[in-house]
Amino acid sequence: MDYKTQRDRAETLRALHAIGVDNAAADNAADDDGPLVLPNAWDAGSAIVFADAGFDAIGTTSAGIAASRGVLDGEVLSRAELLGAVERIAGAVAVPVTADIEAGYGDAPEEVYDTVASAIDAGAVGVNLEDGTGDPADPLAPVDDHAAVLRAARAAAEDAGIPIVVNGRTDVFWLGVGDEGDRLDRAVARANAYADAGADCLFMPGVSDPDTVRALVDRLDAPLNVLGGPGAPPVEALAEAGAARVSVGSGPMRATLALVRDIAAELRDDGTYDAMAGGIPYDDLKTLLEAAAAGREA
Amino acid sequence: MDYKTQRDRAETLRALHAIGVDNAAADNAADDDGPLVLPNAWDAGSAIVFADAGFDAIGTTSAGIAASRGVLDGEVLSRAELLGAVERIAGAVAVPVTADIEAGYGDAPEEVYDTVASAIDAGAVGVNLEDGTGDPADPLAPVDDHAAVLRAARAAAEDAGIPIVVNGRTDVFWLGVGDEGDRLDRAVARANAYADAGADCLFMPGVSDPDTVRALVDRLDAPLNVLGGPGAPPVEALAEAGAARVSVGSGPMRATLALVRDIAAELRDDGTYDAMAGGIPYDDLKTLLEAAAAGREA
Repeated sequence: MDYKTQRDRAETLRALHAIGVDNAAADNAADDDGPLVLPNAWDAGSAIVFADAGFDAIGTTSAGIAASRGVLDGEVLSRAELLGAVERIAGAVAVPVTADIEAGYGDAPEEVYDTVASAIDAGAVGVNLEDGTGDPADPLAPVDDHAAVLRAARAAAEDAGIPIVVNGRTDVFWLGVGDEGDRLDRAVARANAYADAGADCLFMPGVSDPDTVRALVDRLDAPLNVLGGPGAPPVEALAEAGAARVSVGSGPMRATLALVRDIAAELRDDGTYDAMAGGIPYDDLKTLLEAAAAGREA
Repeated sequence: MDYKTQRDRAETLRALHAIGVDNAAADNAADDDGPLVLPNAWDAGSAIVFADAGFDAIGTTSAGIAASRGVLDGEVLSRAELLGAVERIAGAVAVPVTADIEAGYGDAPEEVYDTVASAIDAGAVGVNLEDGTGDPADPLAPVDDHAAVLRAARAAAEDAGIPIVVNGRTDVFWLGVGDEGDRLDRAVARANAYADAGADCLFMPGVSDPDTVRALVDRLDAPLNVLGGPGAPPVEALAEAGAARVSVGSGPMRATLALVRDIAAELRDDGTYDAMAGGIPYDDLKTLLEAAAAGREA
């Protein structure tokens, strides 16, 4: 992706978060009220369908990318494989793409700097960086360590000249860390440390009830990303509670896997094809993919 | 994949077509009556779901692989990209995988030889090779040329020592070539030339009505692969008409894209998540992927 295109996309993504930018086109993109609704793609095909539906930006889902490769998330895929998928997604659509890069592939900030620099090279204009360690005995990175990771991400963006949106994620709620009574305070303390270190947006999967969202938004120093999906309140309720960004993680990808499972069971048990009826006809797929190609070149 | 594993998988795939092999394990795999029902995967995740459902073998779908990369089929993806996807699919499951390699990526038999050799290196134990050219003015390769392509595929398999199933495909029906009255004769003449050149199985997408299938089976010198899917008769009816193999092409993949489109429209219009409800829960996905990993290592 050429520098100007990528910079414009980054500024558009910032504007979609209502993070101030000095760019009229980007500001126009943010004229809509309400949160940024961010569907999460796992390959170029899903990204093209989301972009065709009119979403202003697209996230990636590391769990979805990993599952499409047949493995779990948690940095089981190599950094190169994950970023290869990000590159294909970012290259397939004409809207900003922000990449879920898990914990950044490295304990040291210098390693995460390299990962973020590579994600930018792959066309991403935003990154998620989580403080979950994957170690049940010690589930969260020390707050200062993750703050250093976020500063490294910010530095990589500055060195690249691309004002990416750094989404600082804390897994306090997701992993149910500590006493339930303390969780809000712990999450706020972590998140605000991440904002101070340069995160533009703060992500707390595992919490979506509107009262808690409202309490978080009141105390956070940066916009809040809430994970939507089955079981979570609708976007409108999250918006009223103050969410600035609603993403859906691996929900759509896991839904497609369930459909494949249903197709497989029917084909195996009954030898029929009802579960795959209603698929996008080949000619419509052709139209969709040709329109995507034209959009990329526009 | 080690040589012995791959050879066993090739022999199993032959036995599943009731092509005689001198291998007790492979013959056991073919104890079931009825045609080989072959679901078509486009990534490792879909392959794992199909294998978990108990299918004895898995095909790939070039249109599905291409769509997941955001492009149409017709050898738009590079050979390396297509075979990279085949390699991930074949490496993700413990059952034989046969690869749709379109027209073989090359006009000259020597080029197709290299493609088939590379597909075997990628872990495939079968290949589809089609005679459609992608040129509307001249839609089918000369029959002798495609026969030479199939001989090259056979030679690549012999040189590799892997008795792959070569599926010779004619697009006479698929592309509606020539007068409808002559189509059956043209298709039979082509297909039998392909069998004579070394094709183990003959594939004619575009025809699935039981009477025509029966007429074809009567006149063909090798087992017939029929394309199932919405609009086609159930597997049982195709089996009664004599089909030896029923595959489903890009149908399942296009069904998942339609689901993504529905998820996107609902999220955009209503801000709700009903279309993604019923997805495979993350913990079940973990179980599925861990079982697949254990199966690969068994």
